[in-house]
Amino acid sequence: MLFIQKVDSCRNCRNCRSGEEQYCEDNGTVFTYNSKFKHPHCVERGNVTYGGYSESIIVDEKFVLKIPQGMNLPSAAPLLCAGITTYGAFMKNGLLGNQRLAIIGIGGLGHVAVKIGKALGCHVTAISHNSSKRRSALDHLGAHNFIDLNNEGSIASANGSFDFILDTMPTEHDLSNYMNLLRVGGKYVVVGLPPGKLKVSASSLVGNRKVLTGSKIGGIEQTQEMLNFCNRHGITCDIELVEASDINECYERVIKSDVMYRFVVDATSFSSSVANVHGSK
Amino acid sequence: MLFIQKVDSCRNCRNCRSGEEQYCEDNGTVFTYNSKFKHPHCVERGNVTYGGYSESIIVDEKFVLKIPQGMNLPSAAPLLCAGITTYGAFMKNGLLGNQRLAIIGIGGLGHVAVKIGKALGCHVTAISHNSSKRRSALDHLGAHNFIDLNNEGSIASANGSFDFILDTMPTEHDLSNYMNLLRVGGKYVVVGLPPGKLKVSASSLVGNRKVLTGSKIGGIEQTQEMLNFCNRHGITCDIELVEASDINECYERVIKSDVMYRFVVDATSFSSSVANVHGSK
Repeated sequence: MLFIQKVDSCRNCRNCRSGEEQYCEDNGTVFTYNSKFKHPHCVERGNVTYGGYSESIIVDEKFVLKIPQGMNLPSAAPLLCAGITTYGAFMKNGLLGNQRLAIIGIGGLGHVAVKIGKALGCHVTAISHNSSKRRSALDHLGAHNFIDLNNEGSIASANGSFDFILDTMPTEHDLSNYMNLLRVGGKYVVVGLPPGKLKVSASSLVGNRKVLTGSKIGGIEQTQEMLNFCNRHGITCDIELVEASDINECYERVIKSDVMYRFVVDATSFSSSVANVHGSK
Repeated sequence: MLFIQKVDSCRNCRNCRSGEEQYCEDNGTVFTYNSKFKHPHCVERGNVTYGGYSESIIVDEKFVLKIPQGMNLPSAAPLLCAGITTYGAFMKNGLLGNQRLAIIGIGGLGHVAVKIGKALGCHVTAISHNSSKRRSALDHLGAHNFIDLNNEGSIASANGSFDFILDTMPTEHDLSNYMNLLRVGGKYVVVGLPPGKLKVSASSLVGNRKVLTGSKIGGIEQTQEMLNFCNRHGITCDIELVEASDINECYERVIKSDVMYRFVVDATSFSSSVANVHGSK
């Protein structure tokens, strides 16, 4: 395999010029994975970028990030997804350090969100369907509080108590109950991509001037800012480092939410196993 | 009939202290119509306020507004609903005078929104299912553009073109198509109260960092500010002044959207007709 790709954006539209290349208005964003090639010198294969499956990658210097010295590389890697997705959502929506923050869904995104929210000075509540995450959220991730979504009483008693909710859940759900957790003028930011339509009652928006919005990763400048912030606060992702030959098993465990909190594949193990992995698809 | 009521709020909670009595956290807001009485000296009848059906009304001086001298009173009256609902939604969500604004639904709320948006300096597009409102919107209300919701081509060609959408539609609708009209970071503010749930795809929020929110009238200070603003810009509502005995017919016309744009009932005609109106319910 020889996949060469160029990660880039148009750099001329209003969003690119304001450091939000991920929203390139010219459809020019070339993401690392599954984006259309733009550069004429790229060797095309299926005409899309292959991310970690590539042997080589060409990236303009403006699209290269610096992992701070001393940061553990495997644990830093998912920050480039989970870290910037949550940090970007907080920054772009004006989360303040004295606010009450709730994170819904304590998985790959959510566990970093708890750590970053704590480092930003917020009072952080972890909210999950999975009560087995309570101890990890409180003792290890540093959440101030934990709400089990199976316990209707504890949800109801938290109504109106949050300034900001980050919703990381990737499954279909009605937002109305969760919107009730916000106080007047509170913000509800979706970063997951559940299928179907989100449902919310007009009265939950109109009645208390609540804000529902979404956020997608972040621009290059903000991603570097996030890496530096995490380094200053000793934040990385909780990972299991696995070999390429483990991927099928890991995939099954991801579906069962049986990972705390991200798998990272050791790229040095990749070349010998790739045929096997592809063969199993 | 002797209905005496006191219009009020708790005045102590965070929202009341910041001039947003309509979001009183202590459930203390006594709206003019259909709110629970709070004051012990109120004569109760069904325990709720009766608005314009009352013979007498007691209002604390902090809850009295001044209609600017020279403003036509019947045409000013609906500003206290339609005017503040739209002006408040604009102000609280930071509408800027150089922005491209779309108003969805050109009725009681929407027609005032067009006038106020124009006076704020915005480029205003009126959007309606009712093509018969095109001429009124462009020639009379002063919209710069009109989009007929029955014309899919003209909707699609406006995709990504608005900074701010005010949605006044009171009927159930899927927001996804309308959200597409917003540019990256655009704001979609709901002021109608359609039944059922609003539906929106996560990708329309996440993909372009769009904001969906709602707004409910405004506090007393902002309502006075709106009246003064409308007076400076010569804005009132377009009304038909009717007598109480016309109400049944007006009600039928409202259902058929056959009013440009608000009925105002002359209160001096009220006492002789009230029995008849109540009898028809």
